[in-house]
Amino acid sequence: MREINLSDLDDLALGAAILGTGGGGDPYIGKLVARAAIEEFGPVRLLSLDEVPDGAQVVACGAMGAPTILIEKLPGGDEMDLAFAAWEAHTGRRIEAVIPFEAGGVNSTVPLAVAARRGLPVIDADGMGRAFPQLEMETFNVYGVPACPTAIADEKGNVAIVETAAAAQSEWIARGLTIRMGGQAYVANYGMTGETARRVSVPGTLSLTIGIGRTLREAKARKRPPVEALIEFFAGTHYGLARRIGAGKVADVSRREVNGWSVGTVRIEPLAGGAPIEIQIQNENLVAEQGGEVLAVVPDLISILDLDTAEAIPTERLRYGQRVDILAVRVPEIMRTPEALKVFGPAAFGLPHAYRPLEAAA
Amino acid sequence: MREINLSDLDDLALGAAILGTGGGGDPYIGKLVARAAIEEFGPVRLLSLDEVPDGAQVVACGAMGAPTILIEKLPGGDEMDLAFAAWEAHTGRRIEAVIPFEAGGVNSTVPLAVAARRGLPVIDADGMGRAFPQLEMETFNVYGVPACPTAIADEKGNVAIVETAAAAQSEWIARGLTIRMGGQAYVANYGMTGETARRVSVPGTLSLTIGIGRTLREAKARKRPPVEALIEFFAGTHYGLARRIGAGKVADVSRREVNGWSVGTVRIEPLAGGAPIEIQIQNENLVAEQGGEVLAVVPDLISILDLDTAEAIPTERLRYGQRVDILAVRVPEIMRTPEALKVFGPAAFGLPHAYRPLEAAA
Repeated sequence: MREINLSDLDDLALGAAILGTGGGGDPYIGKLVARAAIEEFGPVRLLSLDEVPDGAQVVACGAMGAPTILIEKLPGGDEMDLAFAAWEAHTGRRIEAVIPFEAGGVNSTVPLAVAARRGLPVIDADGMGRAFPQLEMETFNVYGVPACPTAIADEKGNVAIVETAAAAQSEWIARGLTIRMGGQAYVANYGMTGETARRVSVPGTLSLTIGIGRTLREAKARKRPPVEALIEFFAGTHYGLARRIGAGKVADVSRREVNGWSVGTVRIEPLAGGAPIEIQIQNENLVAEQGGEVLAVVPDLISILDLDTAEAIPTERLRYGQRVDILAVRVPEIMRTPEALKVFGPAAFGLPHAYRPLEAAA
Repeated sequence: MREINLSDLDDLALGAAILGTGGGGDPYIGKLVARAAIEEFGPVRLLSLDEVPDGAQVVACGAMGAPTILIEKLPGGDEMDLAFAAWEAHTGRRIEAVIPFEAGGVNSTVPLAVAARRGLPVIDADGMGRAFPQLEMETFNVYGVPACPTAIADEKGNVAIVETAAAAQSEWIARGLTIRMGGQAYVANYGMTGETARRVSVPGTLSLTIGIGRTLREAKARKRPPVEALIEFFAGTHYGLARRIGAGKVADVSRREVNGWSVGTVRIEPLAGGAPIEIQIQNENLVAEQGGEVLAVVPDLISILDLDTAEAIPTERLRYGQRVDILAVRVPEIMRTPEALKVFGPAAFGLPHAYRPLEAAA
């Protein structure tokens, strides 16, 4: 067991942006909320999956909504408390540990705030191993944990509990609630025991996120090329492989709002010349192609990084002329089984591509 | 105490269309659902407000959604059971009596189905005394009963519980849920004791609805002008006054869907000549004017009736060329207090008109 304290939050936010793969909401905002909570209530205990007691009541949580709205509608900090209280009242069970439902974006840090406020440990794991745009895209769901009851709260004190049979239905209904709650809401779902969490979660992702941020920070301090440092860092983790699949200049960004998501394409002209790299987006970067060849495809990570700092550029901040590296990262085996690919592989996003593991790509 | 049985349902549906004042959903569909339940489970006990035990747990219920969708998405009958079960599980209380949240349209009959299925009595009263388009437009709300917890269910087995501070917020969020549930959902809300129900409800509205239908049926049998029979009938009830405010030919109907409501205007050319009568609509008929003069305004009832049969024509079935009577009915005092007018008077619908009681109008 270790602790997450104020000095970890900058690294966590840097790393969360990369695992956000373009989406997941601005980690800076999550950092502010977590900082306020840790300053008031003290550091958060971080439990590895091995350390969680078998019978402990675990609940997943995070923010839901459009990243662009999060910026305009800052969380007050106690929205998640309301969702937790509603979940507990509804089930008659007491929450004993918190697991982020998403690593990456705002949701690496949002769970820390509620954990600090309630004196609960956070589990060093999550259900996405990255950011995904929908609540059913969870290893929890893949491996049989019901999403419901799902508790949802907003900053005005409105709360709803949703019960559906399928996780995808709960996403659909919770998304509708989130829209009515002003486009941003706070969700507690996927209740499970510690024993189950061990079986169905992507392990070590909070440590991984902090490690990514630390790697960037140290590379900067040592004036080392940060992308190289990242690639070396990932090679030593359970993700095992990161690869720079291109570098270039943002030549075109087309993006529109569809059903509450940012959907579009970014075209990057390689600095070295050659065919442009096209990346398709649904909040997150889904597939990168060059001259008809797939460089990387979801669920493997595709992150667009500033060429100089290797800091991730989220979808909503992509602009013509930015000079970028494109980093792809392999996801752990638990996210690449046939069952997992059914829930968050290319076909789940309506893409015609077969999944091609990063290590097998060109 | 009396019973509602199969032979009451035709009268109830006829009357519900008139109290629907153009909206509230097709009573024919509610009749089918109530009939199926009564055939299977037997008649429903009807309790007057005086007969409800002080401490009895009362819950209001009805269908929510667009009348046009109700026709395409017929209820299976057990949607409301699901909402009731969720309300009971959430509160830990057992529902002992059912009160319609709306008299008029589909919601005079929908509560009968769940009451028959669960062997519960229905209270001869409601919270609108007519149909209104929004869940906060309830005397329950006017006189201090919280709308929440609100339980909402659909025919696919999806259920949600909503907790908000204000009834208007619960309407907003439940409306969003209803849209995600396919445009039609079933709601249980306004939990209260029998003692409270006595204080905050519009009394006698199920009996009134049946009485309206019986009046029309008997007028037809006796070949008596049905509108005259209706006016005479209302004079003998606690509504006290009905008036034919015009008769004419539908000259123009403009109607569009706005936020899930049918919003528009109908223009009627008087048979006797003179200025056209214009009626403004938000699902229900809100205000009738002629030559700049207000003939009747919400919450008083404005129903457009077929000229021959005096059966009500709902908003979605208004057509050019129909020959109609326009009937206005005064609502009881509990619906005309300053507090009540704040919640469902003209200003609550964004109308510039002051409320002018029907008996004071021209």
